[in-house]
Amino acid sequence: MRAGRSFLAECLGTAALLCAVIGSGVMAENLSAGNTAVALIANTLATVFALYVLIEVLGPVSGAHFNPAVSLVMAWRRELPVQLLPGYVLAQLAGAALGAWLAHAMFGLDIFQWSSKVRTGGGQWLAEAVATAGLLFVILRSPAGKASGLVACYIGAAYWFTASTSFANPAAVFGRMMSNTFAGIRPADAPEFIVAELVGAGVGLGLHALLTSRSTEEHKN
Amino acid sequence: MRAGRSFLAECLGTAALLCAVIGSGVMAENLSAGNTAVALIANTLATVFALYVLIEVLGPVSGAHFNPAVSLVMAWRRELPVQLLPGYVLAQLAGAALGAWLAHAMFGLDIFQWSSKVRTGGGQWLAEAVATAGLLFVILRSPAGKASGLVACYIGAAYWFTASTSFANPAAVFGRMMSNTFAGIRPADAPEFIVAELVGAGVGLGLHALLTSRSTEEHKN
Amino acid sequence: MRAGRSFLAECLGTAALLCAVIGSGVMAENLSAGNTAVALIANTLATVFALYVLIEVLGPVSGAHFNPAVSLVMAWRRELPVQLLPGYVLAQLAGAALGAWLAHAMFGLDIFQWSSKVRTGGGQWLAEAVATAGLLFVILRSPAGKASGLVACYIGAAYWFTASTSFANPAAVFGRMMSNTFAGIRPADAPEFIVAELVGAGVGLGLHALLTSRSTEEHKN
Amino acid sequence: MRAGRSFLAECLGTAALLCAVIGSGVMAENLSAGNTAVALIANTLATVFALYVLIEVLGPVSGAHFNPAVSLVMAWRRELPVQLLPGYVLAQLAGAALGAWLAHAMFGLDIFQWSSKVRTGGGQWLAEAVATAGLLFVILRSPAGKASGLVACYIGAAYWFTASTSFANPAAVFGRMMSNTFAGIRPADAPEFIVAELVGAGVGLGLHALLTSRSTEEHKN
Repeated sequence: MRAGRSFLAECLGTAALLCAVIGSGVMAENLSAGNTAVALIANTLATVFALYVLIEVLGPVSGAHFNPAVSLVMAWRRELPVQLLPGYVLAQLAGAALGAWLAHAMFGLDIFQWSSKVRTGGGQWLAEAVATAGLLFVILRSPAGKASGLVACYIGAAYWFTASTSFANPAAVFGRMMSNTFAGIRPADAPEFIVAELVGAGVGLGLHALLTSRSTEEHKN
Repeated sequence: MRAGRSFLAECLGTAALLCAVIGSGVMAENLSAGNTAVALIANTLATVFALYVLIEVLGPVSGAHFNPAVSLVMAWRRELPVQLLPGYVLAQLAGAALGAWLAHAMFGLDIFQWSSKVRTGGGQWLAEAVATAGLLFVILRSPAGKASGLVACYIGAAYWFTASTSFANPAAVFGRMMSNTFAGIRPADAPEFIVAELVGAGVGLGLHALLTSRSTEEHKN
Repeated sequence: MRAGRSFLAECLGTAALLCAVIGSGVMAENLSAGNTAVALIANTLATVFALYVLIEVLGPVSGAHFNPAVSLVMAWRRELPVQLLPGYVLAQLAGAALGAWLAHAMFGLDIFQWSSKVRTGGGQWLAEAVATAGLLFVILRSPAGKASGLVACYIGAAYWFTASTSFANPAAVFGRMMSNTFAGIRPADAPEFIVAELVGAGVGLGLHALLTSRSTEEHKN
Repeated sequence: MRAGRSFLAECLGTAALLCAVIGSGVMAENLSAGNTAVALIANTLATVFALYVLIEVLGPVSGAHFNPAVSLVMAWRRELPVQLLPGYVLAQLAGAALGAWLAHAMFGLDIFQWSSKVRTGGGQWLAEAVATAGLLFVILRSPAGKASGLVACYIGAAYWFTASTSFANPAAVFGRMMSNTFAGIRPADAPEFIVAELVGAGVGLGLHALLTSRSTEEHKN
């Protein structure tokens, strides 16, 4: 039953996150009259605010991953029981789709759509690897009680300094694939994004290990 | 006498909130030369800052609801003595009107006005239900001492990811009905907004219950 | 000697505050190509960040008033020894002028100038009274250790919801009078602003008293 | 080995900082269609978010200087063992170059470039001295545990109130010299910036001393 609540929290949180990302993208594009920088500033603020809130209110239930790459690393580190991993990932993917559809419903768009937005090329893949490496690095090194603000601020920065606007999350790729809006990504471009993110997650894990002495880690645990 | 101070705090806080929402909308519209995205960014920042401050400074007096939907849920949960509910709601409605009028006075507009801004349709109503469900969910799940920042950030995100820019508050609907400015809503459209908000408040309460074990809740109390 | 350090802190802090307000106004106006809403957003962010930092780093030395209206209220409340009041106010006024001149020097403008920006009329005066009442209310009701963030956020909101962009500070009026830039005010319009601010400070003090029980206050002390 | 981890943290942190500054500048310039104020707002937000995160996650390893002027002052104050100073500075300079190159790789630009952006003149040099004086003042006076937020907010303000957009960091000058983008600086203009920054660091140290009683300092230690 505790696992069921965790899955529900992951589904709900990922839905809310994708709804925030996609919905604010639609609103921003509608209002910005082609000024993409203004639209991305609005999209950034909405995402930062949403992430901070969702991690704070759902973290105590499920850890607030909302991201299969994060759950995978947590399972690898034995901080998530490995038998819960499939449930976490399924809940995140289902949530991502539900969040995209809810945003579409609110803005009067077709519920079911596929994005035609091209996001491909070496720069984009490098950007996704960098974005996800940074995300894992930040999560693993956050002082107790500060992960919510740090992850939110990190993503706020990464929206701008990575060439891909930092998806950094396979579930986000999945949800945004189903939205032909500001935040979308063409399904054909999704696999490379996801591979780059998983590689990046590994790099983040490695960088964290390099900076962590065995004794410190043991002391912490 | 303590109840009197609570009513005063709710009236003052709701007045300040509506004055901030409406006043910053007028200023933003005056300065933005038709760039609505820029205007909504300014409106968002002012609202987030104001909400954080008002909840911090008035929370200790009245709980800082500033919102009949919140007071209703709190009375339902026995966190607000039910005999205070009518006073809370009246204070909030009076404050909302006073805040709108104060904003008009500062900006040299007619004090008394009715909005002609159309806000209607299924997408808008769904948006208000989603916005209010999220608001109650956040309030009920905020860790101790963090509600001010979380509620402010939540509303900052919801301004963008909901199609209605997230009123999420029947008193806000009431005050904004009386302002034919950026933040206004046509009186004819108010009832559906309020119904949607009350339904959303119930949904937020239900989602919170689903994620909360009986034992945790008891432990907390 | 401790008093000397307080005066220095007030002078330095007010100089930095005015330099931030005026300098960011010049930068914003230079870059925004006539989009005043964008310029005011930049001006707001710079002011919010600067206020938060200055109150944190100078608060322990002098209380971080940077504002004669605040010092006056603190002297009235016996939280500032009344014999230090003249020194505080002189330090603030000197700092305000120095801050304006430093901003001019950095941006290659004439050091000494007078503003020709008209800011007058009942709406503006009401706005200044409201802005200063709110500022004092927030300062007097801030929970311990939170005044820096609350004052910064309050001013960030008040830049937008008051018709005058919230000077709320006689020393700020003094410094901005000497800058014919985005943030300036015509000397002829200064006296009414200052009177409105002092009236507002009294209103804020009164509202605070209305919400504060005698017993709570005694308990706090 | 502990020193090696410190150098790695300084290199990694400075790389991430420069990548954030330069990358967000490129993104902002690409999207803003010539509206420089909007571009600088985006650049500011990304920098503030990145600085806060980097100081939080790397501060425990190396102190999170990312800045030779800061390391120099810390060595002067005996808070950094003087024999580590050369390693710190080299790590920062190497990180700055790597960060610039990583940003270029993500955005599909030539990896190796030199900036042709002119940044010179007395106003600019004064601005760099002021910016760095303020930075050191803030670092030296930050209450325990608050330096991350205070430094980030300080730089966010200084981007706007200084005429040079506040490099305030010789390593940042070095990295931005190698990027012919929004954030760049012509190599020929670098030496004066660095001299101004070092002078400013000394001024900040002096101002801090003026406000600090001998007894307080001893008590703190």
